[in-house]
Amino acid sequence: MIPFNKPHITGRELEFISDAVACGHISGNGKYTKLCQKLSEESWGFHKCLLTTSCTDALEMAAILLDIAPGDEVIIPSFTFVSTALAFVRQGAKIVFADSRSDHPGIDELAIEHLITQKTRAIVVVHYAGIAVDMNPLMEVANRHKIPVIEDAAQAIESYYLYDNQKKALGSFGVLSAFSFHETKNIQSGEGGMLVINDPKLVQRAEIIWEKGTNRAEFFRGEVNKYGWVDVGSSFLPADTIAAFLYAQLIEIKDIQKKRIDLWNNYMRLFEKGDNVRIQLPLIPEYSTNNGHMFYLMLEGIDIRQRLIVHLKAHGVLAVFHYLPLHLSTYYKDKHDGRSLPYSEHFADKLLRLPLYYELTFEQQELIFTLIREFFEKN
Amino acid sequence: MIPFNKPHITGRELEFISDAVACGHISGNGKYTKLCQKLSEESWGFHKCLLTTSCTDALEMAAILLDIAPGDEVIIPSFTFVSTALAFVRQGAKIVFADSRSDHPGIDELAIEHLITQKTRAIVVVHYAGIAVDMNPLMEVANRHKIPVIEDAAQAIESYYLYDNQKKALGSFGVLSAFSFHETKNIQSGEGGMLVINDPKLVQRAEIIWEKGTNRAEFFRGEVNKYGWVDVGSSFLPADTIAAFLYAQLIEIKDIQKKRIDLWNNYMRLFEKGDNVRIQLPLIPEYSTNNGHMFYLMLEGIDIRQRLIVHLKAHGVLAVFHYLPLHLSTYYKDKHDGRSLPYSEHFADKLLRLPLYYELTFEQQELIFTLIREFFEKN
Repeated sequence: MIPFNKPHITGRELEFISDAVACGHISGNGKYTKLCQKLSEESWGFHKCLLTTSCTDALEMAAILLDIAPGDEVIIPSFTFVSTALAFVRQGAKIVFADSRSDHPGIDELAIEHLITQKTRAIVVVHYAGIAVDMNPLMEVANRHKIPVIEDAAQAIESYYLYDNQKKALGSFGVLSAFSFHETKNIQSGEGGMLVINDPKLVQRAEIIWEKGTNRAEFFRGEVNKYGWVDVGSSFLPADTIAAFLYAQLIEIKDIQKKRIDLWNNYMRLFEKGDNVRIQLPLIPEYSTNNGHMFYLMLEGIDIRQRLIVHLKAHGVLAVFHYLPLHLSTYYKDKHDGRSLPYSEHFADKLLRLPLYYELTFEQQELIFTLIREFFEKN
Repeated sequence: MIPFNKPHITGRELEFISDAVACGHISGNGKYTKLCQKLSEESWGFHKCLLTTSCTDALEMAAILLDIAPGDEVIIPSFTFVSTALAFVRQGAKIVFADSRSDHPGIDELAIEHLITQKTRAIVVVHYAGIAVDMNPLMEVANRHKIPVIEDAAQAIESYYLYDNQKKALGSFGVLSAFSFHETKNIQSGEGGMLVINDPKLVQRAEIIWEKGTNRAEFFRGEVNKYGWVDVGSSFLPADTIAAFLYAQLIEIKDIQKKRIDLWNNYMRLFEKGDNVRIQLPLIPEYSTNNGHMFYLMLEGIDIRQRLIVHLKAHGVLAVFHYLPLHLSTYYKDKHDGRSLPYSEHFADKLLRLPLYYELTFEQQELIFTLIREFFEKN
């Protein structure tokens, strides 16, 4: 059996968890939480990081920090995970769904401007598969309309936007950005997330929202002499054991990334020579690095994709499709404004993700490729 | 140094975490999550349990499940942790604060009925220090007005309401109940919580809200053939490593409870003989068991309490006060209806919690008592 994903363990997770327990502080904001936050800030040039229990929770913090409220509109791609929209729906926002690009599942940067109204309070971009949205034109539109950008960087750790011979980490463009450390991600802690606060003016309030609406963080720094309820918020902090696990992954990120990118490139090499394999290969635009988060194929349609999934499963390989478009979901279809979003549906119907995880071998990739070639010989 | 709290480790936490990792499923709803939920259901007669990342999150799930919305009123004690109110504030509710009893920090059951209006959508009770609110008269009022009761049982694990020669676990009265496994609690996982769903009609929707508004739980049980966005929700599931930690605690609950109750009784024994110690001892009403969660003294006023805290700290003992009344908080004071809540302020000003944790020794308790007696000899 070749599973779709297998969470990678770097080797020091239990050692660090054990140390966190020995330190006697395993609730939130302990030693490893601070270590993870500091290392992330230093590694990627993020202004301030706060670990959260999930990427969903990081997005909720972003929605609260921007005071998103009923009547507000938020522009979000339709081809994304539920949480991207859910965090803003919880604040009562109306979601204005944007379509994907024709050549890539990421949001169509050129199609955003005509969705902006007087009520637009945020634009949320998703760096699908860790591949950058074209941030310069996008930020130009957002800045011109003075609308804050939030990056849903759930899949985008250690990926960069390239421009003018520079590179800038994904997650460092938005006023706020959210990362995921779910076990399906490159770097993981089972469940977990992180909010990045790039606007210094939002840091103090972010800490309060993180700590159940209390000024507890200031209290522990000795800035106030007792702490109390000063704002909205929730319990967004993960246990320090979760942070300890994550720290063992963060310090091995170079090794993890090398392995994943090698595997990704090997898939490309195999499929580029597969003449009769009727698939389209993923595009890495010239303005983005590839962080090896996901390898996907585009099939000709939903039926052939379904048959290929069944064929692979019969041979012990788990390949999976991805999102159902959110504008067509049971929950949102009647709230959507009715616009057709053809590329969102295109990627929903035709995209197939292949197994990609640290322990996957070149031999297993060879086998997966052979199974897919055989499928196309008969179909 | 005698800290106020020291998280207890039972010995098998790392073994179970290691096993969870070896199972290859460390995101939410894995092996140990199911074990913890099943054991809790069996131990306390709860209909259905769902682990959450915190008690705050369990309360948020309760507020979402009851469709609490702007315009609704929720009755909540003022002398409680911020989260009790915050979870309902996040749904837009107006909080109607209730006072404590004169003899105990718990909500005054007799003062609730006159707070009920046409807009009241929930009554939230807090079993302070693990001591039961008088549930029979409270439920009679709530049922007569057809208002659902939610138990904030954060501190109330393995505590019972006693009536008619029966005992019934706290957390099994409310339509929904919330427990905390924060490191300050009897049974802990650093951060953590649990929602109890006692109304079978709410279980299916609770699972959806837990899983980011998707019907993923039904999908994995084979009840639907794909899963999608069907409702509101959030990412309320803890990583299975958190559940593994918690399971190591849950299976040792008898040992933990015996130790804590012994320590609690020893404090009582010491202070009952302390003639010149000008304190009031905690009351355990005849309708409640004592789960040894907290030992507190009532001082004569805020000044003497502050001087006693300083005296103890100077001798290496950390004793701490508890909540500031929520109706007087920076966040809520202007939203409060202006009623005076004298007993809430009474307990806020005069209550002092003494160290109580598994590793505390009788000798250390003797020392703490002696320090307090000495303080009163000079003050």
